[in-house]
Amino acid sequence: MKQSQLFTKTRKEPPSDEVSKNAQLLIQAGYIHKEMAGVYAFLPLGLKVIENIKQIVREEMNAIDSQELIMTNLQNSDIWKTTDRWSDENVDVWFKTALQDETELGLAWSHEEPILEMMQNHIDSYKDLPSSVYQFQTKLRNELRAKSGIMRGREFVMKDMYSLHSNEEDMDQYYDQAIEAYKNVYDRLGIGDETFMTFAGGGAFTKFSHEFQTICEAGEDTLYINKDKSVAVNEEVLDEAAEEIDVDKDDLSPVTSAEVGNIFKFGTEKSEKMKIHFTDENDEKKPIYLASYGIGVTRVMGVIAEKLSDENGLVWPKNISPYDVHLVSLAHETEDVERVDSIYKKLKEQNIEVLYDDRKDAHAGEKFADSDLIGIPTRIILSSSNLEEDKAEIVDRKTGETTYVELSELSSSLK
Amino acid sequence: MKQSQLFTKTRKEPPSDEVSKNAQLLIQAGYIHKEMAGVYAFLPLGLKVIENIKQIVREEMNAIDSQELIMTNLQNSDIWKTTDRWSDENVDVWFKTALQDETELGLAWSHEEPILEMMQNHIDSYKDLPSSVYQFQTKLRNELRAKSGIMRGREFVMKDMYSLHSNEEDMDQYYDQAIEAYKNVYDRLGIGDETFMTFAGGGAFTKFSHEFQTICEAGEDTLYINKDKSVAVNEEVLDEAAEEIDVDKDDLSPVTSAEVGNIFKFGTEKSEKMKIHFTDENDEKKPIYLASYGIGVTRVMGVIAEKLSDENGLVWPKNISPYDVHLVSLAHETEDVERVDSIYKKLKEQNIEVLYDDRKDAHAGEKFADSDLIGIPTRIILSSSNLEEDKAEIVDRKTGETTYVELSELSSSLK
Repeated sequence: MKQSQLFTKTRKEPPSDEVSKNAQLLIQAGYIHKEMAGVYAFLPLGLKVIENIKQIVREEMNAIDSQELIMTNLQNSDIWKTTDRWSDENVDVWFKTALQDETELGLAWSHEEPILEMMQNHIDSYKDLPSSVYQFQTKLRNELRAKSGIMRGREFVMKDMYSLHSNEEDMDQYYDQAIEAYKNVYDRLGIGDETFMTFAGGGAFTKFSHEFQTICEAGEDTLYINKDKSVAVNEEVLDEAAEEIDVDKDDLSPVTSAEVGNIFKFGTEKSEKMKIHFTDENDEKKPIYLASYGIGVTRVMGVIAEKLSDENGLVWPKNISPYDVHLVSLAHETEDVERVDSIYKKLKEQNIEVLYDDRKDAHAGEKFADSDLIGIPTRIILSSSNLEEDKAEIVDRKTGETTYVELSELSSSLK
Repeated sequence: MKQSQLFTKTRKEPPSDEVSKNAQLLIQAGYIHKEMAGVYAFLPLGLKVIENIKQIVREEMNAIDSQELIMTNLQNSDIWKTTDRWSDENVDVWFKTALQDETELGLAWSHEEPILEMMQNHIDSYKDLPSSVYQFQTKLRNELRAKSGIMRGREFVMKDMYSLHSNEEDMDQYYDQAIEAYKNVYDRLGIGDETFMTFAGGGAFTKFSHEFQTICEAGEDTLYINKDKSVAVNEEVLDEAAEEIDVDKDDLSPVTSAEVGNIFKFGTEKSEKMKIHFTDENDEKKPIYLASYGIGVTRVMGVIAEKLSDENGLVWPKNISPYDVHLVSLAHETEDVERVDSIYKKLKEQNIEVLYDDRKDAHAGEKFADSDLIGIPTRIILSSSNLEEDKAEIVDRKTGETTYVELSELSSSLK
């Protein structure tokens, strides 16, 4: 993509009406647009990051045989009444609306109930289980406050997966597989080292649920982690969990963290209330076991923006960066410009995704500042003097380290 | 994908609560799930069709240099008040909701106003124009009636593109480019021959807008088309349009059709009301020209389901089919099953997308009926006798034509 064609412009200053670093940086760099508090549009660069995150999550969920679908945003109140989750007293984040005949509808804040209802159409017997499905859905939650940018939005993208089983052992086994898939996701997103599977407040079926928490100054949680990093407990369940896993609380140190995933077992709680059954080997009707697994896609993007950025701007991990390289041209003479153009074309032919700063009206300082702000991991600088020596200057966005490579070896050096 | 693993099941009968053929077939074949009237979830097969349609549309919009982004579902009422489109009297399809402090919000039924508001942040001067952006958005429209399945949903996926220009000529030129892109889309979707660019009721700026209408029994429109098919006029503007383009009404014949796209020029109407400006070459502030271009992604899927299906089920065009081939195994002996398994693997290795009916508990008649219902364009039948002769039986879903190919030439014959 030629930067002269990219419609978004960077801003010299962060927007004054944002208090969160992630929204400030992402707006300043042209990744997102604020529609209202907690509600952000994703502009071309931002959409690319989201799609990259989604693709990693998709591959890992497919690898554990989950099947992608997409549920609806408009929801039927009847389904939620069966589990007593329609009332605003029990669920305080509902957005509701109504049909023209005044029938009340809910807007999707979660999907356990609609998923179970839908799955019942396709599950008769134990032979149809286990089954796992997931979606990337725009969720709407009527949060009282929304000051954390895309880390806690009123509208956000979430991957939610649901697994259905005929018995507890099978659910437990799949749950363990999902934990490994989640670890793979955070590793591939570049935050694996600082993301912990954490004991957290439980649901109806188990004493604890599990959160995935990433160490992050801007997070809303406090985590107690063990020095060897093998144990993490959310402050909200510190006493019970320390006792349960037989760890001395004094061996745990507090850190501030942000939740990037949450998984939990419903067991048969929901299917009993909703009368969602399968027929077992003895032809008896039994309630289906359910577990659910969420990853906040836009939230994790916000956490990464907060966590990996520096004083000059965003710093994307390779796997989710909107482009592989930022090709910054400092060429002015026609002949040099043509050479840079042809290098851009060659890189694209090698399937390297390139943002090409071909702007003629921006000087070097502006281009470098924008490149820092946008945060693509690898910058290639081509000036007249570089070109004369048949060399490209390569700058690592994270470390600032500069190296030079022969132009003939440029694309191979990037792989 | 092994069909034994696909969680969706076909139904013997269409659902009794659906009157539209597209929803009946798509539910029966396991592509969609009805959440409520006009609101459908897209199950794995259905999601694949949507993604295939989106990818075609995406490639064609990218080819005319439009940039993909994603706006928000929750909308600010203030923006819509500037153009007088907030009131339910002026726009009768609003779904509305409210924040906890009772601030009213709109749910996205369209995006012209939010797009212009957002774009103003990135457009200062004539040098920033033209600019074109598009999105695939889940739109919510509070339709009074919803009996046409996914052809007129209360929740549906739409591609909407917006182009912004500094002058009318530039807008007209891009509009013409978009028309060609739209024609490419419908050609690639397999309905180009029966889709007509049609004069329709206009907007504020031009006498007529243009619709793309596909001949379809289940459509809601009546089109008057010229025998040589070069002219089409929506009944609603028959007299004015016939006069405008100097065609004798008697040379036009009526057909029933469904709208699959709609494009129109707003000119400066919206930017004048919203005070959206650019600075021209003489440093003067001028309102931006706007044109907008919609394709109903889920609607077009519904139209294709209606139009190309037959008495046995769905018939997908190659380009949007959920799978390239339906491999139906009639093998029972272990050795034969292993051979079919290995053929399945080989086809996948050749990047051929295969739905593999490996079910052991379904007999041939059931498998063929399901295969007809699901509607993948090419069926490969492997029975013991086929395998013995080292041949595959290939059936064309549309024509029923059967051919035999050597197993060694199977994958090359499919390309």
